[in-house]
Amino acid sequence: MTDLLHYKDFPEGMVIPFGTYHLSREEVIEYAREWDPQPMHLDEEAAKRSVLGGLAASGWQSSAILIRLAVDGYANKSAAMASNSMEEVKWLKPVYAGETLTGRGTVLSRRISSKRPEMGILKMKFELFNMEGELKVEITGVQFMGVRHP
Amino acid sequence: MTDLLHYKDFPEGMVIPFGTYHLSREEVIEYAREWDPQPMHLDEEAAKRSVLGGLAASGWQSSAILIRLAVDGYANKSAAMASNSMEEVKWLKPVYAGETLTGRGTVLSRRISSKRPEMGILKMKFELFNMEGELKVEITGVQFMGVRHP
Repeated sequence: MTDLLHYKDFPEGMVIPFGTYHLSREEVIEYAREWDPQPMHLDEEAAKRSVLGGLAASGWQSSAILIRLAVDGYANKSAAMASNSMEEVKWLKPVYAGETLTGRGTVLSRRISSKRPEMGILKMKFELFNMEGELKVEITGVQFMGVRHP
Repeated sequence: MTDLLHYKDFPEGMVIPFGTYHLSREEVIEYAREWDPQPMHLDEEAAKRSVLGGLAASGWQSSAILIRLAVDGYANKSAAMASNSMEEVKWLKPVYAGETLTGRGTVLSRRISSKRPEMGILKMKFELFNMEGELKVEITGVQFMGVRHP
């Protein structure tokens, strides 16, 4: 437990690079079937006729991919304590089946909770890119983080 | 296709009741394993020690449940055309394994796109409740909706 990162390890302006995630056609359809069963996320032909222009992940799945990269990238190496809100979720471009994605997290600002001094409040920006560097998803929100009291 | 709901069928102030969703313990763990593998979403004991107080869904899963209810509740009966953003996602209370959930959507405001007159832009509020009426999740964001030109 003492090896975990804590609030002090996430200074304002810090940029955390994430790993990569390959999104298969099967995963797009599987996620959509369970959580967002609209024709444009389930069927190639319906997708081509839609504003997406081709089979693309639900925005909620592309967000989930970004969060998975963030969990592997820092949350599970830290005293992360969940979140209570995101203040902006932007799906700037469709995430197409077959794309490989990566991302990063940036500490926009931070403070210690006045009610709970053992808890820090990080305001984070999360960004998801494809391998061509196109920004696909941008999420801004809260990450609660444990404060280490030695 | 002519039976689909269109922009004209979603006036400002309209409230759309959604169906129900029962969230099992297995689904909480399965979702977390794939998309948000933090100990508090995977393990009962870790969850009890966390701010959640018991095994609870990832906020992203509770959002996915609300979106699934919205897709069944109106999107798949309408000319819904995806979304490009949510401006607020609030996880007000943990959604615990074993809870049954319901929700509703409210049309906060609407306008026709100036660039694309065949597309309406609905600003929607989505709310997720448990059977005791506790508000768990509140999401505000954009729903693009086809305009019928007879």
